[in-house]
Amino acid sequence: MTHPIIKDDEVDVVVVAIQPDLTSFLEEWRPILSRYHLIIIKDPEMKEELKIPEGFNHDLYTKSDMDRILGSTSILFSGYSCRYFGYLVSRKKYIVAVDDDCVPAKDDRGFIFDAVAQHISNLRFPATPFFFNTLYDPYQKGADFVRGYPFSLRNGVKCALSCGLWLNLADYDAPTQALKPEERNSRYVDAVLTVPLKGMMPLSGINVAFDREAIGPALIPGLRLAVEGKQRWETIEDIWCGMCAKVVCDHLGLGVKSGVPYVWRKDRGDAVETLKKEWRGMKLMEEVVPFFQSVKLPGTAAVAEDCVLEIAAMVKERLGSVDPLFGQAADAMVEWIRLWKGVASVDRTLGV
Amino acid sequence: MTHPIIKDDEVDVVVVAIQPDLTSFLEEWRPILSRYHLIIIKDPEMKEELKIPEGFNHDLYTKSDMDRILGSTSILFSGYSCRYFGYLVSRKKYIVAVDDDCVPAKDDRGFIFDAVAQHISNLRFPATPFFFNTLYDPYQKGADFVRGYPFSLRNGVKCALSCGLWLNLADYDAPTQALKPEERNSRYVDAVLTVPLKGMMPLSGINVAFDREAIGPALIPGLRLAVEGKQRWETIEDIWCGMCAKVVCDHLGLGVKSGVPYVWRKDRGDAVETLKKEWRGMKLMEEVVPFFQSVKLPGTAAVAEDCVLEIAAMVKERLGSVDPLFGQAADAMVEWIRLWKGVASVDRTLGV
Repeated sequence: MTHPIIKDDEVDVVVVAIQPDLTSFLEEWRPILSRYHLIIIKDPEMKEELKIPEGFNHDLYTKSDMDRILGSTSILFSGYSCRYFGYLVSRKKYIVAVDDDCVPAKDDRGFIFDAVAQHISNLRFPATPFFFNTLYDPYQKGADFVRGYPFSLRNGVKCALSCGLWLNLADYDAPTQALKPEERNSRYVDAVLTVPLKGMMPLSGINVAFDREAIGPALIPGLRLAVEGKQRWETIEDIWCGMCAKVVCDHLGLGVKSGVPYVWRKDRGDAVETLKKEWRGMKLMEEVVPFFQSVKLPGTAAVAEDCVLEIAAMVKERLGSVDPLFGQAADAMVEWIRLWKGVASVDRTLGV
Repeated sequence: MTHPIIKDDEVDVVVVAIQPDLTSFLEEWRPILSRYHLIIIKDPEMKEELKIPEGFNHDLYTKSDMDRILGSTSILFSGYSCRYFGYLVSRKKYIVAVDDDCVPAKDDRGFIFDAVAQHISNLRFPATPFFFNTLYDPYQKGADFVRGYPFSLRNGVKCALSCGLWLNLADYDAPTQALKPEERNSRYVDAVLTVPLKGMMPLSGINVAFDREAIGPALIPGLRLAVEGKQRWETIEDIWCGMCAKVVCDHLGLGVKSGVPYVWRKDRGDAVETLKKEWRGMKLMEEVVPFFQSVKLPGTAAVAEDCVLEIAAMVKERLGSVDPLFGQAADAMVEWIRLWKGVASVDRTLGV
């Protein structure tokens, strides 16, 4: 098996600007991010001018770019959702996205962990969704497949999605954080593993990377709360997106990994204050999980776009009457695929 | 949710004596094992007298005990398989088993990790097979469920099986170890996680614990190579046993965990020398995995004994013609359940 080296120019790092000054965020990331191309998306609801320090190879997109490139659309690319606009306009094979309240994690000696390189490594080496390896990632240096692992499965499959983790402030929901206001995560688990076939996991958009060519269209802004806010606690969009992406990966024979890299997540917001807003999202989850666990895609759905449209139809049919938000999610998924294909067709016209 | 403390007298530690002198093994384990009851099984093929140091609360079983308790049986409790005799005669709720080439792992300061306490903790706290928690074991101190984890699944289910890991000599098969003769595992991953529903993993008998009352009958000596040897490389029995146990756990709504505790595994045997013997076992695995992945147990199979008998019938029907070893495995599974029920009925007669 060959493991092609991923070149820096195959990677876009998508940075969502929810706060107007990216200086301290980007300065902390400079040793890692200065070698990559950045796509910076300014939250269309933000009025202030955006401060970006010198020395980064980047393209900045604002509300006027959204209007120009997308025309009229029902999808709101505001708040955390503006990252999805970055996914649309990227032309690279791989996308890495990190929230702007996260800085690189450091080891005991103060050296920073290169989260982008780790995500790239996760995507570059195969995943093993069909059989669990108790020794974690078998392709990592110093590791291998455990006794009893079938030889026919040791080639693995392409890894399409890499879900990273968080030191300091773990990605809890508002009630959990509210119950444990002092709890901080200091446990660095040096492992990455493939989430098995059919196993569902909650994706977090805080620290994530994926193969845009393989499953880009499945990383969708779908289920959005009426009061989707500017704190992660207040979003459910990335959770829905992750379920959708996992189902699509399972269907297409692609892998999903979870584990390192960690990022250091700074404190932000008030969990207790946002408790009221998020409760509805958590109730919806009780419907969402059995739904996605039951999704069976037809063999005719051969690429991610097809899969998303199939899922959207199932959402409408099976969940539409449960809550109007589900009907809106289905519509957003269809609209997202229209946008995705539209942007891609402009590329073809321009010969990109 | 309450987490009952497991008392020391609910635990049997099963020690397999394949070598005649257990002194150094038990001395290394003394700080941990001296508080538990041990079931020591002497390999019936071993002629030498067994040396057991003073100060351990133990029962020793030899070939004559096997003959006396079991009467005539087609199952060979020799080599590593003699552990299964220990599983039969235990009357405790929990069993922990460690191979006699393993000693307690130590941390950087030379303190030993208590593998038994960790296994007990794994079994004592629930498992979460229906949804993957990216933050690993949510019940561990300092951890919790990640945002997006459905609240209805946060109670988890009973954990029935805890699969530990190995420092120094990882549990590779013979070809892998032969290809990397110098490779030693020094990576301590401080995590335990639930293997998701339907995910299959290779159980290793080297370092394992289980809830005997819940799934004891599913920890079976089933598939045995004609030249099953005295090195782990040469066995496939525990791998088969693990697949069976996982399928039974999935069916009965029980959980399986993998991760800590580690034990330090000493070098033993010659991987290259045993390559010839084990190859047949590895070829059989290619049949075994799809079989177990396809097993669907009927709702009438309500306890582990029923499940094993159902699986035995499927093995005979679907794999019997592939290799005579599979037919023998099916027979061994049926015989095992006969022995299990027989030993239990003696208990009932005696009022135990």
